[in-house]
Amino acid sequence: MSTTHPFDQSTQLTAKDDGFHGQITAEYGNMVGPYGGIIGACLLQAVIDHPERRGVPLSITLNYAAPLAATEHRIAVQLVRNNRSTQHWSLQLFQEGDTPLMTATVITAQRRETWSDTELKAPQTPAANSLKPIPTQGFPTWVGQYDMRFMQGVVTLQDADKSDDSTSLLWVRDEPARPLDYASLMAISDCFFPRLFVRHQQMAATGTITLTTYFHASEDDLAAQGSDHLLAQARGKRFFNGYFDQAGELWGSNGQLLATTHQLVYFKM
Amino acid sequence: MSTTHPFDQSTQLTAKDDGFHGQITAEYGNMVGPYGGIIGACLLQAVIDHPERRGVPLSITLNYAAPLAATEHRIAVQLVRNNRSTQHWSLQLFQEGDTPLMTATVITAQRRETWSDTELKAPQTPAANSLKPIPTQGFPTWVGQYDMRFMQGVVTLQDADKSDDSTSLLWVRDEPARPLDYASLMAISDCFFPRLFVRHQQMAATGTITLTTYFHASEDDLAAQGSDHLLAQARGKRFFNGYFDQAGELWGSNGQLLATTHQLVYFKM
Repeated sequence: MSTTHPFDQSTQLTAKDDGFHGQITAEYGNMVGPYGGIIGACLLQAVIDHPERRGVPLSITLNYAAPLAATEHRIAVQLVRNNRSTQHWSLQLFQEGDTPLMTATVITAQRRETWSDTELKAPQTPAANSLKPIPTQGFPTWVGQYDMRFMQGVVTLQDADKSDDSTSLLWVRDEPARPLDYASLMAISDCFFPRLFVRHQQMAATGTITLTTYFHASEDDLAAQGSDHLLAQARGKRFFNGYFDQAGELWGSNGQLLATTHQLVYFKM
Repeated sequence: MSTTHPFDQSTQLTAKDDGFHGQITAEYGNMVGPYGGIIGACLLQAVIDHPERRGVPLSITLNYAAPLAATEHRIAVQLVRNNRSTQHWSLQLFQEGDTPLMTATVITAQRRETWSDTELKAPQTPAANSLKPIPTQGFPTWVGQYDMRFMQGVVTLQDADKSDDSTSLLWVRDEPARPLDYASLMAISDCFFPRLFVRHQQMAATGTITLTTYFHASEDDLAAQGSDHLLAQARGKRFFNGYFDQAGELWGSNGQLLATTHQLVYFKM
């Protein structure tokens, strides 16, 4: 029996001539293929592992062009532009065939000390340890890889919980607990159930089309966070003819804003 | 004297074997090179002009890898994935040399009628015609291509207007007026002055690194808007060691949410 965390197994990549090879484990299975957040973590990890990479991740944009199979994937990484303080990366993920299933762009940067301020304050909430994690049965497998404790906007599939407000507020961390790094922060930025489910409290066909996460965290912020729960909030702004957006924030347990995230989701209803 | 709107001149592209060729006019000049919004409009227009394009723009992500010169550019467009209802596009913009100055991804989609709801309501504001446009002298040239009428968060460079809140709220349209289309909506989604200037009321070196805009508007929404003012709001969430984010919304004059937009900006201070 392996003692390696499933997150580390799933994001471990082997560098070969044609790119970075890896395979996501069954623990991160979603309705169709693996959870989008773990796919994003693999793509980000390919940049982090690249020998020419300098600095830390600033942003990642993921375009989900086709569902992945539960088999090995290959990530082709191109350093498009190498500036003094930033690097621009373009990525494509392949399984069978030569048409990419994912495209992505990543920007890394060497940060320098400047005037700084966190303008958006974290919501005041009860402590994570005063709340219970949601039961994971009935949800896709990947949900079991997270400990989620909701204060608002949980998906219960009960009519009584239907709402005109798609906002969710929750504490979330890897399960089992694991120290936060950029790859796991990327994965957690996709942890929000589709806002459509919060509104209607019913399942429907949905799929992320494109996701962008901005990393506001330094390596010191990640170290300070360790394996504590993150505070996570998300909401949708417009649901319209097959697509809706959701925008979210991830704060450290000390109230520091670590990442902001946005996605556009396909739906049928 | 040309009677074509400078926006149409700047986004007009000529299809050649190696991509779409165009040149942005001097009216859209910024501190260094052209205004980022007009560059984004050109990239989006290249997809709109592509003979294989189906449906309307859903999202665009722009990565500003290097400043453009005020000369001709070439946009290479690749249809990466052609799904039943969505298309995934990858773009690169070149001037001299074979290293791209911009990369971009665009998603287009054929929307189908579904349950729809605009959850985020437009702020209540005075009518655009009850306010005066800001004077454009002292600003980069491109600002003169817009009629902007501020209710909150204008940049005056006066100490008295320094604020802990980077929010801006304004009415904005092309100047001279021009019927809204997806390309001009893209351009306007970058019209927000850097949030740093709102906070400090002083100029500083800044530059957009990456921008993502989600289009929530149908062609009917655009037609309903015509050349009226859009209501625009933006704010920053964290300013940290050389980079800050800004997130914004663009509503039609009838209160419909037409686009949401996010960017990450480099700064020195």
